[in-house]
Amino acid sequence: MPVPTITWENDALRLIDQTLLPEKYIFITCRDVGTVAEAIVSLRVRGAPAIGVAAAYGVVIAAQEAIAQNADFDRYVAESIQKLAQTRPTAVNLFWALDRQKKVLAKATDHSPTEKRDRLLKKAHEIFEDDKRICRQIGLNGAELLSSQATVLTHCNAGGLATADYGTALAVVYAAVEAGKQVAVYADETRPLLQGSRLTAWELNQSGVDVTVICDSMAAAVLREKNIDSIVVGADCIAKNGDVANKIGTYGLAILAKAHQVPFYVAAPLSTIDMKRDTGAQIPIEERETEEITHGMGRQTAPSGIHVYNPAFDVTPNHLVTAIITEKGVAKDNYTEIFERWFGE
Amino acid sequence: MPVPTITWENDALRLIDQTLLPEKYIFITCRDVGTVAEAIVSLRVRGAPAIGVAAAYGVVIAAQEAIAQNADFDRYVAESIQKLAQTRPTAVNLFWALDRQKKVLAKATDHSPTEKRDRLLKKAHEIFEDDKRICRQIGLNGAELLSSQATVLTHCNAGGLATADYGTALAVVYAAVEAGKQVAVYADETRPLLQGSRLTAWELNQSGVDVTVICDSMAAAVLREKNIDSIVVGADCIAKNGDVANKIGTYGLAILAKAHQVPFYVAAPLSTIDMKRDTGAQIPIEERETEEITHGMGRQTAPSGIHVYNPAFDVTPNHLVTAIITEKGVAKDNYTEIFERWFGE
Repeated sequence: MPVPTITWENDALRLIDQTLLPEKYIFITCRDVGTVAEAIVSLRVRGAPAIGVAAAYGVVIAAQEAIAQNADFDRYVAESIQKLAQTRPTAVNLFWALDRQKKVLAKATDHSPTEKRDRLLKKAHEIFEDDKRICRQIGLNGAELLSSQATVLTHCNAGGLATADYGTALAVVYAAVEAGKQVAVYADETRPLLQGSRLTAWELNQSGVDVTVICDSMAAAVLREKNIDSIVVGADCIAKNGDVANKIGTYGLAILAKAHQVPFYVAAPLSTIDMKRDTGAQIPIEERETEEITHGMGRQTAPSGIHVYNPAFDVTPNHLVTAIITEKGVAKDNYTEIFERWFGE
Repeated sequence: MPVPTITWENDALRLIDQTLLPEKYIFITCRDVGTVAEAIVSLRVRGAPAIGVAAAYGVVIAAQEAIAQNADFDRYVAESIQKLAQTRPTAVNLFWALDRQKKVLAKATDHSPTEKRDRLLKKAHEIFEDDKRICRQIGLNGAELLSSQATVLTHCNAGGLATADYGTALAVVYAAVEAGKQVAVYADETRPLLQGSRLTAWELNQSGVDVTVICDSMAAAVLREKNIDSIVVGADCIAKNGDVANKIGTYGLAILAKAHQVPFYVAAPLSTIDMKRDTGAQIPIEERETEEITHGMGRQTAPSGIHVYNPAFDVTPNHLVTAIITEKGVAKDNYTEIFERWFGE
């Protein structure tokens, strides 16, 4: 089963440095909020749910720093929350987790800094434990969609490395395997940062799941030739209408899925759904550095000074999504209505 | 205008080592057939038309070697042709060029080795000059399909670096620019070997054409957002019915083109059409080394021992191809009939 991506140890946040996988399997320890923010910006920790958990602990670390430095507690923590909020614009779980910590602080105005810190830590642990439980439930809900012998195509990494525990898209795979199903996975390598070949292949391999790496451009041929039963991906933000922002390439994959009549599933926790955004057009899309494409893997692979377009995400319209799998259940179409019901429960 | 990819100088074949671009712009000189074959296998020279030209000169080099070594001329050259034929299975121009050299030899059985060598060289020069002329004509024929302000998406490198001169897909761009049209190009980087970012971006940049590099997975988003007027790609083999084998990813791109109602053009010389293959299903697809994906650019980017699927090409069915642009003209649908007419002329 998946490796522990995020742990809280000795008043510090311990993370796998995912930029070094699969060559090196090294942990970093964050004792100040700057290190947490840098880890999120640099994708040492990534994946919408994991970013949320890391940010929640980041607020605890900010509180500890404020206490240690005898700083103005409320101001220091508020500024730290601001800093964490500026790390990445698309993953809604980041803002969701920070909002939950803000609410903790709002309810604790009369308490001492230490008491506030303890409440923030309690909430961070709660978010962490919730995420684990939610991942399991997403897995169980999604596994029912896979037949007893299934070949799944996935994109990027929506696995244990992207969450506190078990993943979202890969939770579906893990749960199906645990239920005795035979599941093989094709993993898009996912340029530019290769989360598919570096992370998804690595964690599935560690867990003994049969995985084959392909370049993103091979997905169409694989859909035609390799009897793919379904595509399962994660999400960084889901709009109220079911439009899905996820790793760049997801939208193209959804078109290819439709062309090959393969179901296209999105697996994500409820915290990834942003009911304040009516459609995907309202989701901000992060553009990242040119160098991720031109100098990706140790070598210069494009001419110096060349123009580059590097959006980190794209939006898949709801009509290309066969179903959205959450901890609450599986939504097929009528997304707004179902989401409203789930949030009302 | 494009750089000279292939030249014949001092009885030797001089090639740009395309594996080193864009970091290094270095020529290699082939004086023996083994070096020519290695250059083709290793993609130092690549692109269907360029492979054909290089192989034609490779036969000349084999003849020179046979003479220098006082070897059994006919046997040495025949074995060398065999060796060259085994370098890459998909590009039909390779076999086409070797067949033309075999015919030269068949007509010269009574002549001396030196005379045979001279005739082979004459034919190689002819193939080279034909390719230049053909590239120009493909460019002129294709340029008419572009409006006065056009944004084109291309995949892999079907440019000057892939031919004797001017390219096939990029010939369309070059000819349109020469005709005073404003053309901007988006170049898929084209994993695993990055011919798009390394070669297409480099040669368009050298020629002053506006080019933007994207990852292959970004094509769908670019088609939706960037007002792409057409997709233009080359081909490694075209079947009698118009099915097109080209760099892996082309098939997916054709599906995305259709989904966005963008015309999908294939530009290639007649020598790329294999009338002996009725459909694309009969085109052999080369699978290449795992390491191209797992250790692509100087770094290990997938776990050791992981399964990898690495087809170098895919087949785009004729119904997804808006038009095939050749030196003879532009075929839209009814490919078999039009090809038969072109070959009969």
